[in-house]
Amino acid sequence: MRFHVPTLLRWSDLDAYNHVNNSRVLTLLEEARVRAFWNIGASNDDERPLAIIDAAAEGGDTLTLIARNEIEYLAPIPYSTKPLDVQLWISKMGAASAEVDYEIWSPEESHQEGTERVRYVIASSTLVFIDAATQRPRRINDREREAWTPYLDEPLTFRGGRSND
Amino acid sequence: MRFHVPTLLRWSDLDAYNHVNNSRVLTLLEEARVRAFWNIGASNDDERPLAIIDAAAEGGDTLTLIARNEIEYLAPIPYSTKPLDVQLWISKMGAASAEVDYEIWSPEESHQEGTERVRYVIASSTLVFIDAATQRPRRINDREREAWTPYLDEPLTFRGGRSND
Amino acid sequence: MRFHVPTLLRWSDLDAYNHVNNSRVLTLLEEARVRAFWNIGASNDDERPLAIIDAAAEGGDTLTLIARNEIEYLAPIPYSTKPLDVQLWISKMGAASAEVDYEIWSPEESHQEGTERVRYVIASSTLVFIDAATQRPRRINDREREAWTPYLDEPLTFRGGRSND
Amino acid sequence: MRFHVPTLLRWSDLDAYNHVNNSRVLTLLEEARVRAFWNIGASNDDERPLAIIDAAAEGGDTLTLIARNEIEYLAPIPYSTKPLDVQLWISKMGAASAEVDYEIWSPEESHQEGTERVRYVIASSTLVFIDAATQRPRRINDREREAWTPYLDEPLTFRGGRSND
Repeated sequence: MRFHVPTLLRWSDLDAYNHVNNSRVLTLLEEARVRAFWNIGASNDDERPLAIIDAAAEGGDTLTLIARNEIEYLAPIPYSTKPLDVQLWISKMGAASAEVDYEIWSPEESHQEGTERVRYVIASSTLVFIDAATQRPRRINDREREAWTPYLDEPLTFRGGRSND
Repeated sequence: MRFHVPTLLRWSDLDAYNHVNNSRVLTLLEEARVRAFWNIGASNDDERPLAIIDAAAEGGDTLTLIARNEIEYLAPIPYSTKPLDVQLWISKMGAASAEVDYEIWSPEESHQEGTERVRYVIASSTLVFIDAATQRPRRINDREREAWTPYLDEPLTFRGGRSND
Repeated sequence: MRFHVPTLLRWSDLDAYNHVNNSRVLTLLEEARVRAFWNIGASNDDERPLAIIDAAAEGGDTLTLIARNEIEYLAPIPYSTKPLDVQLWISKMGAASAEVDYEIWSPEESHQEGTERVRYVIASSTLVFIDAATQRPRRINDREREAWTPYLDEPLTFRGGRSND
Repeated sequence: MRFHVPTLLRWSDLDAYNHVNNSRVLTLLEEARVRAFWNIGASNDDERPLAIIDAAAEGGDTLTLIARNEIEYLAPIPYSTKPLDVQLWISKMGAASAEVDYEIWSPEESHQEGTERVRYVIASSTLVFIDAATQRPRRINDREREAWTPYLDEPLTFRGGRSND
């Protein structure tokens, strides 16, 4: 199952080439990830992003660090006032890390019948969970594994990548 | 041969975790790439970044698009007023694209003898060259190939990546 | 009459002090301004922000430049997934410029009954309209003046400012 | 006496109008301010920006908050690989606050003889000093007042502003 997070562009996401800057795309994915994970947790506490983890954790605070990002840009993203459709899901659960895969699609709202929607970006992040007290990686526990399982889906296939050369 | 581009952090590159935000790292790599490629061209024209390409091109304007980014974060980057040491080189030249590899190291300037410098990040970008008139990819020509050859070096080995799973 | 533009924060708007960075506030105001001015124009063309001007203009393209910003920060803005309530209106129409005033309020959505909403920021921008062809300022015409008049409202009073010292 | 802080642009500071975005100017001023205040303190501790205050303070940590920004944009700032010349100084010392004034000038380095350098921006920030323990404003003490006095200079005169209307 995928999250579908409507994600708003800002005019300032454009660079001098007049489309969304390639590094800003990571910011959009970060924002979608924060919002997706938030919605699962029952907690209404706005001060703790990534609440999916905190919500599932048996006490104790967890920092979520990004260990790796991979992004393929399939088409330039123009400015739109309509929200982009950012889809994301967990593509892999390791012992102490997880992978989140993403697709960024053109807005659902302004989509005109008879035309195809555009897939702008595919991407993947590796998340590592750090125990805030010890500052060391910690294992994903059973409650978390259970909470995340519905959002586990097939990993993307990237076109590029070192191993295909 | 590698470029060594001293690259300054901004205090605003820090996020709420008090280290450089993972998406901002791409901005740092972009800035180092613009500055590296600039220095080769004899041109002093500040309005056209990525002059390595324009400088080598036989007339005609070229847009450089990013088709793919891969980033591994080996250690969190703390704020420093000293410039980071961003090393970059061309790791592959294709027919109509090139790959640039990067390493971000802790500042050379403030490095204390007897301690080891820290390698914070390894990364790679795939660049595609677009003919501004036709808006279509164009081949790397002989003059460009010659100009870039001194900066061709061994590709990095990433730890992660889909194919290693 | 004021525009009320629900404006989403991003987690990356926070700085190392864990509240919205003071310069990022200007980005939020810019985004609200782009969205407010957009909605007036009947045009659905996503490529031209600030359509209020283009929509009202009798042909010809106009660039909108910011000549001046003034911002007072009344309280730190914490992260919230709920949209901030950015209110804006035209506080003055000159011959070739206009002033836009803003207030940023805590989210309407998460507001708990019996508590007062927080006014985080008051601000003002001076906009100058540039003829794209001549690159020189141009006068506000009658059609524009008519289109904007409903959004003309009382100017804010700032606490600080040089003249009050 | 003014600080002269060479401040590097990033290519990503440009917006779709191909000059430095008006809100990004505040980021440049912030960075210059952090670097200026840093240099006074003897401390070499990279983790604490705004060391001018900490350096002068008699024990105890201080947060520096921005209470007000005023910026006039005199000319658009184009991209340059040469550092801008950001000049800043203390224009007023109050009981528990200080004002910093700024001018952003075109690069000194690339300036061609016989031409005039361009003043792009004039600006002013009001800083408030917060006791980190009590989270309340605290007074500027005698040691701070003494340390800052050499950098006290004439306040700028702004062209615009509410009181001149």
